[in-house]
Amino acid sequence: MPDDLAPAIAGFETKLDRLAALAVRVGLNLREGQEVVMTASTETLPLVRRIVAEAYKAGATLVTPILHDDAVALARYRHATDDAAFDVAPAWLFEGIAGAFRAGAARLAVVGEDPMLLAGENPDRVARANRARSKAYRPALELITNFAINWNLVPASTPGWARQVFPGLPEEEAVARLWDAIFAACRVDGPDPVAEWAAHNRTLHARTEFLNGKNYRELRYRGPGTELTIGLANGHLWAGGAEAAKNGITCNPNIPTEEVFTTPHAGRVDGVVRSTKPLAYQGTLIEDIAVRFEGGRIVDARASRGEDVWRKVLDTDEGAARLGEVALVPHSSPISRTGLLFRNTLFDENAASHIAIGQAYLTCLRDSAGASPDELTRRGANTSLIHIDWMIGSGEMDVDGVTQGGEVEALMRAGEFVGGA
Amino acid sequence: MPDDLAPAIAGFETKLDRLAALAVRVGLNLREGQEVVMTASTETLPLVRRIVAEAYKAGATLVTPILHDDAVALARYRHATDDAAFDVAPAWLFEGIAGAFRAGAARLAVVGEDPMLLAGENPDRVARANRARSKAYRPALELITNFAINWNLVPASTPGWARQVFPGLPEEEAVARLWDAIFAACRVDGPDPVAEWAAHNRTLHARTEFLNGKNYRELRYRGPGTELTIGLANGHLWAGGAEAAKNGITCNPNIPTEEVFTTPHAGRVDGVVRSTKPLAYQGTLIEDIAVRFEGGRIVDARASRGEDVWRKVLDTDEGAARLGEVALVPHSSPISRTGLLFRNTLFDENAASHIAIGQAYLTCLRDSAGASPDELTRRGANTSLIHIDWMIGSGEMDVDGVTQGGEVEALMRAGEFVGGA
Repeated sequence: MPDDLAPAIAGFETKLDRLAALAVRVGLNLREGQEVVMTASTETLPLVRRIVAEAYKAGATLVTPILHDDAVALARYRHATDDAAFDVAPAWLFEGIAGAFRAGAARLAVVGEDPMLLAGENPDRVARANRARSKAYRPALELITNFAINWNLVPASTPGWARQVFPGLPEEEAVARLWDAIFAACRVDGPDPVAEWAAHNRTLHARTEFLNGKNYRELRYRGPGTELTIGLANGHLWAGGAEAAKNGITCNPNIPTEEVFTTPHAGRVDGVVRSTKPLAYQGTLIEDIAVRFEGGRIVDARASRGEDVWRKVLDTDEGAARLGEVALVPHSSPISRTGLLFRNTLFDENAASHIAIGQAYLTCLRDSAGASPDELTRRGANTSLIHIDWMIGSGEMDVDGVTQGGEVEALMRAGEFVGGA
Repeated sequence: MPDDLAPAIAGFETKLDRLAALAVRVGLNLREGQEVVMTASTETLPLVRRIVAEAYKAGATLVTPILHDDAVALARYRHATDDAAFDVAPAWLFEGIAGAFRAGAARLAVVGEDPMLLAGENPDRVARANRARSKAYRPALELITNFAINWNLVPASTPGWARQVFPGLPEEEAVARLWDAIFAACRVDGPDPVAEWAAHNRTLHARTEFLNGKNYRELRYRGPGTELTIGLANGHLWAGGAEAAKNGITCNPNIPTEEVFTTPHAGRVDGVVRSTKPLAYQGTLIEDIAVRFEGGRIVDARASRGEDVWRKVLDTDEGAARLGEVALVPHSSPISRTGLLFRNTLFDENAASHIAIGQAYLTCLRDSAGASPDELTRRGANTSLIHIDWMIGSGEMDVDGVTQGGEVEALMRAGEFVGGA
């Protein structure tokens, strides 16, 4: 895509450069002398090359992109002669990556996956390959989820993803439109995204501080089809925006990010709630979810589309029908304003206030490191094999915070924060 | 490149498919249930994807391409802020690859490097990066050079490489012409390259058996500017074509391959020899090499171009001015017939009879495994940090073999094998 626009309007190449600089300077907050291990699709090479250049400019010693390729991934499903192949994963590669992390490398992942890539393949094979991969990847993933290192996810438009976001458009136009949406959502439309992200992080941190100061007992949601009370876990902590990794580097793991989030009390959720955006789940769209909670548990579940899949998900285990996360996002967030369903968690979970069924984040609980599983459960932290976010926010949603003393305070009105948040 | 030719003439796509099948079936001779680790440039993805598909069809459990990218490699030289960066290599990746080899994976490398990629960069940085990389890569390389696993190198045309082979042509045409040359050199022009390679391997094996049966004391070369006697090492062994790796799999490490080669006696080379093709050495062309040997050592060295570089190479260490390999290639080989200088060892060393200064191959000596370094030296095996092949064969070269009893037998005439070879 040539950069042929008037200089006053930043062109494609400029925005791509800004996104790359943002990923390195804000996303990773790369330290001089750090090594970087990247993962990315071959289709995202134009962004990958810019990120590599930016990382070296920021003082990286070595940047190693590990590139994956859709055609290579599909070839296995199309041509493998032995079903046992699907129980094999490149453990040697993931162990190597984990080793690089342990030796101090930062991790940057370019996100541009086609959400439907494997939708036509044998589901048993897909499930087995995922299982083998998850198992082999665990040592590296644990260093990421435990926040041992600074890491960042940054998006890139690809034909496969763009096709799902703009199903009606010709490929080239869809890819360009998705880039535009990404640039808007990542706040790189302006001339100085690094400064803009500093301000954005300040906003998110002020919000988490406000909410942590309030220490609400519960949140009350009101909107079309929604009349819901969500108790918050005892000693819950709100998080959002840049965070300090255990290697001492404060980074922005997600670009974009709009949410502030915490741990609900898995036993104190009551009322009805309706989804405000479709949930893209493993190739299926689940629409118009409506559920009723009693004592924290979903006791009635409906959907206008994909209801069977939705009920199956809720049956995964005991914790699958209870909440593990609650997140607040203003309706005016740049992602929300695109009006798009991205079918990608990095975007969709930042488009609207949402809740997640399943596993809770222990980082959103005070002093969780020393606590026993029983203690954590008693405080309200849910456990499950799954963690699935779904959107309940909209321009018609009001949220109140209820203090430990029982006072009711307006927190969001018509989808926007009010008062001190 | 669309495959729009008449069906009678195999088109580009068909030949690419054949080359992929050849690399997997003949090059690796892949075993069912084997994993494959590939290395390749991002520019060679069309061939990489076909090789992946062929490998799965042949029973591979998992094929993992590790893709490198010229722009990523250059970014480090252009943008790294700290010189210390050039002492860092991705040891974690190479250790992972070595681990995969030890666990039974085959190794396939797609070769398409731009021989001039780093020609414009700081030579000190290039040298340091190479050193760091070589050190980190050693565990994996040893498994390859010790032939612990089945492995294969297969070529692919890339813009950077094609530019060096066809400096006068527009890029697209140069790439297409290099592909044509590759297809011809790799014998995939015909309808059944796998059968053709079986026949080719039989020819090479018959030739090594003949030469091993003869056990010549020395070879005598006559041609324009050449009057050279090369003594062969005591207990030398000729090799060429498919070979059995230590994992029991017989593979063709090099595609293409035309040579039969053995170990000369580093102390018994006398006379003069002139190169018949330019030597591409680290971005420099060395032309019209003419040297005189006395008692195995080069005592006079000239070149019409690059003489300084050439003399420096010969000064590397004591073994650098002595021979470590002698190889015979018929002048009518497909690579020779292209008339091209590929600036790539995989091709150029198979274009003509050649000799190499520097380190000898111990695999070309009987019972070398148990022998002491002194014993190997006494038998004639050279040692050096370098191993550089240069072409001395042509359509005007005659070669005689001299038996242990002193009989002189015609071995090559006008560049072609005669008699039983």
